This record gives sequence, structure tokens and C-alpha cells, in this order.
Amino acid sequence: MKKLGFLGLGIMGGGMAANLVKAGFDVTVWNRTTAKMEELVSLGARGASSPREVVAGCDVTFAMLADPRASEEVCFGPGGVLEAMGEGRGYVDMSTVDGDTSRRIAAAVAAKGGRFLEAPVSGSRQPAREGTLVIMAAGDRSLYDEAMPALERMGKLVLYLGEVGKAAAMKLVVNMIMGGMMAVFCEGLSLGKRAGLRIDDILAVLDNGAMANPMFRLKGPMIQEGRFPVAFPLKHMQKDLRLALLLGDLFHQPLVSAAAANETFKRARDLGLGDEDFSAVFRAVS
Amino acid sequence: MKKLGFLGLGIMGGGMAANLVKAGFDVTVWNRTTAKMEELVSLGARGASSPREVVAGCDVTFAMLADPRASEEVCFGPGGVLEAMGEGRGYVDMSTVDGDTSRRIAAAVAAKGGRFLEAPVSGSRQPAREGTLVIMAAGDRSLYDEAMPALERMGKLVLYLGEVGKAAAMKLVVNMIMGGMMAVFCEGLSLGKRAGLRIDDILAVLDNGAMANPMFRLKGPMIQEGRFPVAFPLKHMQKDLRLALLLGDLFHQPLVSAAAANETFKRARDLGLGDEDFSAVFRAVS
Amino acid sequence: MKKLGFLGLGIMGGGMAANLVKAGFDVTVWNRTTAKMEELVSLGARGASSPREVVAGCDVTFAMLADPRASEEVCFGPGGVLEAMGEGRGYVDMSTVDGDTSRRIAAAVAAKGGRFLEAPVSGSRQPAREGTLVIMAAGDRSLYDEAMPALERMGKLVLYLGEVGKAAAMKLVVNMIMGGMMAVFCEGLSLGKRAGLRIDDILAVLDNGAMANPMFRLKGPMIQEGRFPVAFPLKHMQKDLRLALLLGDLFHQPLVSAAAANETFKRARDLGLGDEDFSAVFRAVS
Amino acid sequence: MKKLGFLGLGIMGGGMAANLVKAGFDVTVWNRTTAKMEELVSLGARGASSPREVVAGCDVTFAMLADPRASEEVCFGPGGVLEAMGEGRGYVDMSTVDGDTSRRIAAAVAAKGGRFLEAPVSGSRQPAREGTLVIMAAGDRSLYDEAMPALERMGKLVLYLGEVGKAAAMKLVVNMIMGGMMAVFCEGLSLGKRAGLRIDDILAVLDNGAMANPMFRLKGPMIQEGRFPVAFPLKHMQKDLRLALLLGDLFHQPLVSAAAANETFKRARDLGLGDEDFSAVFRAVS
Repeated sequence: MKKLGFLGLGIMGGGMAANLVKAGFDVTVWNRTTAKMEELVSLGARGASSPREVVAGCDVTFAMLADPRASEEVCFGPGGVLEAMGEGRGYVDMSTVDGDTSRRIAAAVAAKGGRFLEAPVSGSRQPAREGTLVIMAAGDRSLYDEAMPALERMGKLVLYLGEVGKAAAMKLVVNMIMGGMMAVFCEGLSLGKRAGLRIDDILAVLDNGAMANPMFRLKGPMIQEGRFPVAFPLKHMQKDLRLALLLGDLFHQPLVSAAAANETFKRARDLGLGDEDFSAVFRAVS
Repeated sequence: MKKLGFLGLGIMGGGMAANLVKAGFDVTVWNRTTAKMEELVSLGARGASSPREVVAGCDVTFAMLADPRASEEVCFGPGGVLEAMGEGRGYVDMSTVDGDTSRRIAAAVAAKGGRFLEAPVSGSRQPAREGTLVIMAAGDRSLYDEAMPALERMGKLVLYLGEVGKAAAMKLVVNMIMGGMMAVFCEGLSLGKRAGLRIDDILAVLDNGAMANPMFRLKGPMIQEGRFPVAFPLKHMQKDLRLALLLGDLFHQPLVSAAAANETFKRARDLGLGDEDFSAVFRAVS
Repeated sequence: MKKLGFLGLGIMGGGMAANLVKAGFDVTVWNRTTAKMEELVSLGARGASSPREVVAGCDVTFAMLADPRASEEVCFGPGGVLEAMGEGRGYVDMSTVDGDTSRRIAAAVAAKGGRFLEAPVSGSRQPAREGTLVIMAAGDRSLYDEAMPALERMGKLVLYLGEVGKAAAMKLVVNMIMGGMMAVFCEGLSLGKRAGLRIDDILAVLDNGAMANPMFRLKGPMIQEGRFPVAFPLKHMQKDLRLALLLGDLFHQPLVSAAAANETFKRARDLGLGDEDFSAVFRAVS
Repeated sequence: MKKLGFLGLGIMGGGMAANLVKAGFDVTVWNRTTAKMEELVSLGARGASSPREVVAGCDVTFAMLADPRASEEVCFGPGGVLEAMGEGRGYVDMSTVDGDTSRRIAAAVAAKGGRFLEAPVSGSRQPAREGTLVIMAAGDRSLYDEAMPALERMGKLVLYLGEVGKAAAMKLVVNMIMGGMMAVFCEGLSLGKRAGLRIDDILAVLDNGAMANPMFRLKGPMIQEGRFPVAFPLKHMQKDLRLALLLGDLFHQPLVSAAAANETFKRARDLGLGDEDFSAVFRAVS
């Protein structure tokens, strides 16, 4: 792999691109606001004035953008990825995935003769900086293999899941399990409290047993204190539960527990908690 | 604390009593089958011929018995704990808890002028041997404080939860969360599989994120292989869900997710999976 | 059938006994407060001073008492049914059924050589007066056949369900369906309202289709007006749902919908609606 | 109202149009296959060769077509409704409703200066023939008032629900309640059977109480016999439950019972029962 591009140098992208530069790759970067490009340039990256310029000069271009709308604009907009896309070039969109957007971009890239990979990540700022993200890739297999040396610098776990859309499905499955866990966790905390137990005792028992996990460890004390600083908004969790249930409908997969969790998250939205952290679902069951 | 007694030297009790002996306590032991006593005696414990003899010679006697029925017999039966119970003596039953049995024993001990603590543990053979159990104690507070030097040798986490019965409630709360997690975990794995994902990819993503926990790590690969070696029988999990729901009924605590999980475990029992491991609930959702 | 007895002349029993007298049976009656006996005597019944006296003088004695406690006292108390029970005599308790009480009375009657039938009814004051109750009988078959001429005067539908306890099971099954219908009915009304429909339009459509039923017709307008005059207390409905779910547990019968309804009724109790009519569950879903 | 048109003379439309003719209205009819037109013409209707011809000659045209696709074709296709639609003309589509199709037709009719009403019915062949349908109308209010003399001849209950789309919402609400009722009905029948009750006894008790309704009366005996002749396909019921749940999502309306019913119907589809009658959901709970 000779030359890499990187579009989007925000909280996540900045750290990810830096890891590529530090690993010795020849990296060209672009960001909407140029200030953020300077740090990368000072590390050894080249700066470019548009996504098109990056794609035109690179073999494989990565993108890490804020949301599906940003992904669309950077791809389809003026000065965008498609204007320079062509035979042999690769485009890896690592932004938060959305099946429809992803398939639209994939089709457009393919129509220009290029190759596409959706590669959303799990993990936030610190893992991005430390190169310990979980990367779920789906799409062109040859591009995946070719991009692997770079992907390995950004993630501690890199998976190839199959055709475009599979990464979106993975996100829904994982978030569905997360929503179900959070709902029954909150029910347990509320039941225990009413039965005269102390929440921190329950948390201590959980954290010393087979169910011990970072989510309970992080959210438990916040729930106890009634603080719900937003990491993942409750309305987004409910949306993912709805989408996971629709995915289940497609396959006639009974999802009794996930459906129950969805109703609890809907109750929470009905209580006006949609913009709080998803752990605020506690208030809908207590 | 001068003298300690220990009743029941099975898989769990053997290791726990050994830890007390190794810590230098003066320990008198008893077991239904005498063979198991020899190992403890060789470590420095005294052997006794009945629970009564142990209690008569000790300040605080611990018990770790197979089930509530064994707890009752050792307490109320001929040559049992009650025959020697009296003013100033303490009895700590660490067997798997059951609210009613526990309260009956507590009342009988108190009637004799003694003090009682229910102190069920979470953790199995190895933590028992290594002294890293989680101990949930409830009952007489002064006995709890007095027994602490011994409890600390058996557990890495020792909690005092309040009056007798609270430890049973804690067990139900924790197992209810466990059942709910397992149900939605299995739904997610089945949904993912139908959507074309590989189960080991889902497990890898979960194990590298905020939900990573020993239970998913242990049970996930077994579920994938369709093997369900019994660690915790499915019918016991369903029973605990039922009891947790009845506890919720008492406090009018809505438990939509736990109730959904209970129905799924009932379906599994209806499919004849009651004696399999509780992770076999996967077969009821897939 | 020569001589009939009737114990309990309240709102229900008064009308039922009157129907027997009007049909030409030789009827001896007893009631705790004697005032209520006079009306029956004026119709042609004999009055007695105790349940014992009634049973002593009759072939078959019916009882319609306020609750399980009254059933127990009239049977086991001083001057009660058991004191005169003996070979060849029959006792038919038509009070609201409770499996345990029923089985205790059945055993006591059998021990005296008598025969027993539990025969709870569905229907209230007016059907009692008009002889159009639904009578669900369980217990001694020969007594059922012998009592039929009288039962037919009190009910428009008389069923023999099998051994003692079956009538209690029938009540739970029927009330479980009622609770489930009410829960989803209320969800539909609330959804429709939020979607901009008028509740009375929804009620009109329902009442003109395949789901038209007296319960929706009666409760619908009350729900619309937010009035919940107590006919069947919400807490009793929730108790019956809990008992039906426990019955389901016994047979590993998955009851996903009934369990969901139970949680909704629990939420209603948690909102303080336990003493309102069970249709007040609307407030827990709207 | 001077002149009425009627498009679609199938099982439903034939009887409905006949009722208009018999009531003395001046009616022009059209049907894809001309054979069916003859009966109406023999009753006194005029025949036309296309929807356009009907609309061109009538003040208000009614349509009763097989499905949304037929509705679209008759409206938008060659020789269709739109070709003759214009200022002052009214179009009332009484076919089974689908929010999107309905809104597309409404917009097209309005763009031509015409007025539109969606007016789906509940009831089947016999009520259509007898003029006892339930008609749920939504859309242009002045057209509703103008069409009332004709609507009253076709339905025993005619409701105006508001803007276009409201009739679709009503259908979803009503079918959601129907699905929930059927699910808990089947759970009750299965529970009763396992508890040793006879299904026909349960049906008799239900049919003599406050829940008595035509649906239980019709489907109960079929469920008992294990016969599920298709009146309303299970897969359509599950689709309506899914759509009702999505409608609930829009308003954050918790629908715990409907969600549970949906999962049960999904299980039934997973068992291969999608093309059976929706009462076959019994097999998913028994």
C-alpha cells in the first residue's frame, strides 16, 4: 500500500489518522475546518483542500465523519469523493453506519469503477487515540485485505463480516443486546431497592461475579446517583431497538425480550427522557 | 474470636474450612461422611462426631451444606446445632439460601439465645479454595462483626445486607438480571445468525466492548457449538425468575423484561430443556 | 330430590334461593342476619337458626357466602355444616372459589361421609335474580346429577368440570383472558387517541365488528370519561393474573401476552390504582 | 346528489352498488370483467367502458377494489379516474386502506381540482349485500356530507374520522386489539387444556359472560378442532401488528401487550403458519 488518504479529523478521526502517520504510512488528510489539519501535518501528513484531492492522490482513502448526512455530502457533494473515484481506488467509510446510506455510497463508488468498504467502529476517543478500536468491515474483500495493514494500526480487533450492510446488522444486534441488558439491569436495581437492598451492594455483587462488565461498572453508580450524563442518547438506543426488531420481523425471529426492552425505552421517551443517556431508562422502571 | 466450627466439607466447604485452618484459627470440623474430615484434620483441624459437638465447643460455627433440606436436618435433627445452641454462641449458615428455611433456623437459634447469620456465597469450587468468594451476609450484626476475621479469609467481598431474608432477595435480584441477560443475548445471537452474521464474530465484538463479561465469554462458544454442559440448571434459573417476579409483585414493581425472560425460559422447559444448562434457552429462541 | 337447604341470603344468595322456592322445591334457609330470611319465608321457605340445623334437615344444602373466610366459618365453625354432615348428605358451595379453601372443605365433608361440590358462578345480582347465572361445578359427580334440577333453576348454563379445584382453574383462565383483553383494549384506545382518533369512534367500530362484546361496550365509555366505578377491583384482577401465571408455570405453559398484561396491571397498582375498577389500567398505558 | 359512479363489482362492490341502485340513485358502473356489470345493469344501472367514462359522467364516484395495487391502477392508469377528474367532482375509495397509497391518490385528485375521501369498510360479503357495513371515512368533509345519502345505504355505521390517513390508523388500532385478543384467548385455551379443562367448557363460559363476542364464538370451535380455514391470513395480522407498533413508536406510546402479541404471531410465522388463518396462532402457544 503506497498512499493513504484520511477524511475527517474530529474527535475520532484525528487520533486514527495520527496512528497511521506514526506507523510510517504516507498519509494525505482533509478536514472541513482546516485548523484540525495542522496537528496532523505537524506529525508528517500532507494536507489537501478537498476530499476529491485526497482521493485523486491516494490508493485507499479512509473517512471518519460525524453522521450519515456528512458521509453523503463528502461522497456526493461538490469536490467530493466521487469526483476522483476510479478504477483501482478504494474508499473505506468508517463513520457510524446506516444500511441505506452505506448501500448508496457503495453503488456510486462501484459505478465509478472503485471499491468500497463500510467499516464502522466501536469504541470512543481514547481507543481511537490508542489504536484499540473494534473495526467491523463489510464490502469489497480485496480492499479489506489491502487495507488491513492500516486497519490493524487503528483497531485491536478487525473483522470482515461479508457484503455491504452486514456491519449495520452487527451494530443493531450488539445494540439490541445492550438495550436488553440495560433494561433488565435497571429492573433488578429497582426491585432490589424496593426490597430493601442498597444499590451499591447489588453493584458490588454483580461486579464480582460472572456478569461483571464495564457497562454496569460505569452506569451503575450514575444510576444510583440519578445522574445520566449523555454518552449514548436514549432516543438513539430506542431507534436501534426498533430497527433490530424490524430486522427480526424480516426473518420471523421471535424477540420477546428485545420487544419488552423496546417498550420500556419507549416509555422512557414518553416520560421525556429521549435526550438523556440511555441509562436513564432506570427512571421508566423505578 | 477463639474457636471456630465448620459443618459440611463438600466441594465448597472443604476449601473454605481449609482456608480458616491455614489462617491459624482454631477450627473444629464435622462432615456426614468422615473420610472428608481427615484432610482437614491433617491440616490441623479437630474432628467432631456431630454438629452438636461442634457447636458445643465453639464460639462461632459456620455451615456449608448441600441444600435447604440438609440445612434443616443439620440444624433441627438429632445431634444437631440446636441441641447445643445457647447464649453467646453464633451460627453462620453459608449454604444456598432460601428465605423460609433461613427464617425458621433464625427463629430457632434466637429462641435458644443464640445469634444467626445467613451468608450465602456466589462463586464455585475454585474461589472457595482460593478464598475469593463473594459472601452476602444478613442477620445479627454483632455476629457479622465478630465473624469478619474468618469471613475475610473465605471471601474477597463480604457484604452485610440487613435482616435475615435480605441475602435471599439479593440472590433473586442478581439471578433475575442474569436470566434477562442470557435471554436477550440468545435472541441477539439467533437474530445475527439469521441475518447472515457469524456467531463468533458477534461474540468477538461483544467481548471487545462495554458489555464484555465472563458469562458471555464462557457460554457464547458453547451456544455456538450447541453444547450445554450443566453449570446452573435451566429449571433452577426459571424458578428463580418466578420467585423474583413474585418478589416484584409484592412491591408492585413492573418487571416487563424479567417477565419476558421468564416466559422464554418456560418455553425452554416446555421443550424439555429443564435439566440442561440455563444457556440452553438459546434453543427456545432460535 | 326432597329437601333443599340454602345458606347465605345476600345480594346473590337471596335471588338464587328465591328461584328455588318459586320452582316449588321444599327449601330451608339460613342467614347470619335474620332480617334477610323473612322475605324468603314469606315466599314459602322454612327458616333455620344455624347451618347445622339446615344440613340436618335437608338432602342437599347450597351455600352462597361472601368470601373464602365466610365459607370456612360456615363449614367449620360452631353450629356449622360439618356438625350435621353425614352419609348421604350433599353440600354445594357456590361462593367465589379459592382452590385451597375448597379442597379443605371437600376433605372435611368427605371425612364425615358426605359429598361435596364447588360450584362458583359468573354473573351478578340481576342474573342471580333471573336464574341466568353461569354455574361451574366440580367435585362429586353423583351429587352434581342429583342437584341438577335445582342448579338449572339458578343458571342458564351449568357445567361439570371434573374434580374439586377445576372450577378455580376455570375462573383463573377466564379472568386471565379478561385481563389480557382489557390491557390490549386500553393500549388500542390510547394509541388511537394519540394518533388523532376519537375514542368513541374506535368504540363504535369495535362494537359493530367481530370483537363486539359487553365488556368493551360497558367499560369503553367509562374509560373515555376517565371514570372507573368499581365493579371488579384492579388489585383482584392483578392477583388473578398472578395466580394464572403460576398455574401456567406449573405446566410450563408460555404465556407471553398474559405476562405482559400482568406487568401492566402491576404498573397500575404502583400508580395507586389497586382499589379502582380494573378498567383503570387505562391510566397505566396512556 | 344527481349522479353516482361505482368502480369494482366484486364480492363486496357488487352488493354495495346494488344497494345504491335499489335505493333509486342514478348509478353508472364499471368493472374490469364486463360479465359482472350485467347484473347491475339488469337492476337499472348504466354500464361504462372505463373508470374515466364513469367519473366524467358522475358527480361522485365510489370504488371498491381488490387491493392497493388495483386502487392505484384504476386511479393512475390509462382510462383511469384522474383522466376525467376535475373541479367539483368527488372520488370515494372504499377499498382496503393503506396510508401511503391513499395519500398519493388524495394528492393527485386534489391536483386536478377534485375532492377525495378514503372510506374503507369493515364487514364482508353479507353485510355488503345487506347494507350493514361499517364505513370509516377520512378526507374531504364536504364530499363526506354530500356522499352521506349513498353511504347510509351501504353501511349501518358511517364515521368521519378526519384527514386522509385517519382511516388507515383506525384499521391498525382495531386490528391490533384483535391480534392481542386472539393471542391471549389462545394462551387461555392452551392453559385451560393443560390444567385439565375442556376447551368447549371454556368457550361456553366465555360465551355466556361479559367477554362474549362473535370472534371467540366463530374461531373457538375451529381452534378446538385444529382447523384454521383462512378468513384473515396470519401474516397479514402480523404485518398489521408491526405497523401498529411502528405507529406507536411515532407517538412513544408504550404497547407492552401488543408487542407481546406481535412476537407470538412472529413465532407462528416462523413455524410456517403465515398463510393459515390468524387463529392458527394457537399452535404457537400450545
